[in-house]
Amino acid sequence: MLKMNDIISMKQEGRELGEEEIAYFVRGVNDGTIPDYQVSAFLMAVWFNGMSEDETVLLTEYMADSGIKADLSDISGKKVDKHSTGGVGDKTSLIIAPIVAATESGIYLPKMAGRGLGFTGGTLDKLESCKGVNTEISAEKFKETVKKIGFCIAGQSKVIAPAEAKIFALRDVTSTANSIPLIASSIMSKKIASGSECIVLDVKCGSGSFCRTQRDAEELARLMVRIGAAENRKTIALITDMSTPLGNAVGNSVEMIEAINVLEGKGDYDLTDLCLTLAANMLYASNVAEYEECYARAEETLYNGKAKEKLADLVECLGGDRNYIYDISLFPESSVSAVLAADRSGYISGIDAMEVGRSASILGAGREVMDAKVDHTAGIILNKKIGDRVEEGEAIATLLCSDIDKAQSGMEHLFKAITIGQNKTKRKPLIIKCIGGKC
Amino acid sequence: MLKMNDIISMKQEGRELGEEEIAYFVRGVNDGTIPDYQVSAFLMAVWFNGMSEDETVLLTEYMADSGIKADLSDISGKKVDKHSTGGVGDKTSLIIAPIVAATESGIYLPKMAGRGLGFTGGTLDKLESCKGVNTEISAEKFKETVKKIGFCIAGQSKVIAPAEAKIFALRDVTSTANSIPLIASSIMSKKIASGSECIVLDVKCGSGSFCRTQRDAEELARLMVRIGAAENRKTIALITDMSTPLGNAVGNSVEMIEAINVLEGKGDYDLTDLCLTLAANMLYASNVAEYEECYARAEETLYNGKAKEKLADLVECLGGDRNYIYDISLFPESSVSAVLAADRSGYISGIDAMEVGRSASILGAGREVMDAKVDHTAGIILNKKIGDRVEEGEAIATLLCSDIDKAQSGMEHLFKAITIGQNKTKRKPLIIKCIGGKC
Repeated sequence: MLKMNDIISMKQEGRELGEEEIAYFVRGVNDGTIPDYQVSAFLMAVWFNGMSEDETVLLTEYMADSGIKADLSDISGKKVDKHSTGGVGDKTSLIIAPIVAATESGIYLPKMAGRGLGFTGGTLDKLESCKGVNTEISAEKFKETVKKIGFCIAGQSKVIAPAEAKIFALRDVTSTANSIPLIASSIMSKKIASGSECIVLDVKCGSGSFCRTQRDAEELARLMVRIGAAENRKTIALITDMSTPLGNAVGNSVEMIEAINVLEGKGDYDLTDLCLTLAANMLYASNVAEYEECYARAEETLYNGKAKEKLADLVECLGGDRNYIYDISLFPESSVSAVLAADRSGYISGIDAMEVGRSASILGAGREVMDAKVDHTAGIILNKKIGDRVEEGEAIATLLCSDIDKAQSGMEHLFKAITIGQNKTKRKPLIIKCIGGKC
Repeated sequence: MLKMNDIISMKQEGRELGEEEIAYFVRGVNDGTIPDYQVSAFLMAVWFNGMSEDETVLLTEYMADSGIKADLSDISGKKVDKHSTGGVGDKTSLIIAPIVAATESGIYLPKMAGRGLGFTGGTLDKLESCKGVNTEISAEKFKETVKKIGFCIAGQSKVIAPAEAKIFALRDVTSTANSIPLIASSIMSKKIASGSECIVLDVKCGSGSFCRTQRDAEELARLMVRIGAAENRKTIALITDMSTPLGNAVGNSVEMIEAINVLEGKGDYDLTDLCLTLAANMLYASNVAEYEECYARAEETLYNGKAKEKLADLVECLGGDRNYIYDISLFPESSVSAVLAADRSGYISGIDAMEVGRSASILGAGREVMDAKVDHTAGIILNKKIGDRVEEGEAIATLLCSDIDKAQSGMEHLFKAITIGQNKTKRKPLIIKCIGGKC
């Protein structure tokens, strides 16, 4: 008879687990018969010894099968999903989903998002900075929205891959979040269980993300593409830079506002290009057209206003006030704002994503425990990018929060995050590589 | 502010923990503020990355200080303790403690023993095979017994090193029992908290023990001797063979009977010599006399009957019937007994300790979970030792248990444990090395 202790020791000794062991583990996690302390010991053994591709595929499958799979069979078009491994200033879902829907290509984007722990809130928190928005909706409401407007972004259903959710929660508190096979199986199991036929992944690398190095990011990306192939899902992965924050805003309402700017064709060039590239790959993965045609279709939605209208539709479907998308002055402002000024003249040579994220977290934009509330008005607006000229005393960034002590403490971190050099530093390209698609 | 997640990740990254981190960990385990799943993740990280000597000494100290230390200050002589890392057929405590007390050297042996999980019961279970014996006694009764007869063997007090007990229980169910720094700190913290000034350790190596190799056993032994020195306790460690069972009996009442045989001077030569060597080192560590004189004093107690009398005294002090020690026919017999006969003629070339242990466990002599009862009558009696001549059909061993199915299944394991070759195999020496003492 199989025992959890034996499965743990197989992993300690570097022996490969078979289907029987993986099935036993996931089943035991799901029904609670394997206690948390054994699950976490196993996760730590995986952190050290890794998992083979076969083990990872099996873990993904069993986690995907651990709950109820989303039934989207009465939606006739292809279902396509996008996932980012997360970082600082990542508001791409808020931009890409409306773009894809606005192309009216006959494909659907049913996106479930976790709320997540981190430097800033997740996509759901950002959406909820529009008055009235509630992202915790029923499966029926979710499907109805997808049918009506072509997409939906809402809270991850608790019946989808519940074993994954339990493992995810334990990883977070046992320092085992940053294990490549665990990340890969976690992401892919949810995507598979939520019924997507095509999956486009944005794998971040750099200080603000799980993968610190390009090598780790590539390993993760290739593993997920292989899992996708094993499960008959067309999967594309972009590897993108997260050594510096994405765009200019880091927070919740400030990121929502930046997303609106991008959808008006007035956003940061790199951020806009990344969003269009991801959107184009989603269309391309769904066989809508050749890649260049997909990119052109995506781009068009920014200039004809349709993508912005789709975001307003989403806000309305989630019970919110669609006027927020057309009048950003409706977003409440933070009570405190403080400016970080340059202490010398020169060129911005570095803006460290992790330290900017920490600063945003101190300001109140993120959460450390699951049930904590985020301050939607808190955040950071960066006025400069790497390579920009700056004069002594010039404003580099604005910090937004609810009290002066947080501003002080956030300022100290942000000061450390930004370096000024004497020579102009060349910016790294944002999109590093594309696996299985085009860029 | 210190967080458990950060301490786990320090250990993952191979950074050395300082006093602040170790203190935080042990305190959190003790008061329950660190959940089990974080403790087990940490233990697994230690299993992979080890601990430095400084870390191990700190862990030992903080675990030793986690409860109430035994107060033996009103017992005037030196307090000396002995500990074995455990194995198959290890009944040495039942022999050594009476021997040391019988030498009347003015030293005291307050031995607390865990019940433990394993192939057979622990020392307490073996003692309890004498009718009426109860080893769960109060601290007062324990001290009173030590004063009265010079020693006591009883259940580990729950107030002694409680943090260690929690960690021990978690190690057992997370496959992290066999980590050298965790074993060393576990053993030494209990010995230090129970007030012993001199400690003699019997570190086993071979298939029936935690340390499979001599190298591991030496590492563990040297680490414990260094921890002892850091805590001002004279510590001696013997490294002894556990590739094959100790003595001829494996079980509970059968081991008690074998211990009585040794105390009558009629026991197995190797087992008797090991017990005398350990006893002599306890006297030597306590500065009773030169080593050779200590050995001679210990040996004398076997032939003058005083050691056996001490064991009977202990049984009586624990509420049991002292006649068991003088009349072994009082021990209840198992309902089933089966004989393993040689399938060919030759010489016994191997008796694998672990497989013999598994067989004993199947027969009912051990326990798999803490609250299970052991069958005191179950066990194995080996008629042959490595190197002995055997003829086809001759009885090699007798299996004792309560039903025929167990006998059948135990027999299959025991058959695998014993190998017969064509050439006479030389027996390994039982005592391999002595660190800090003599042999």
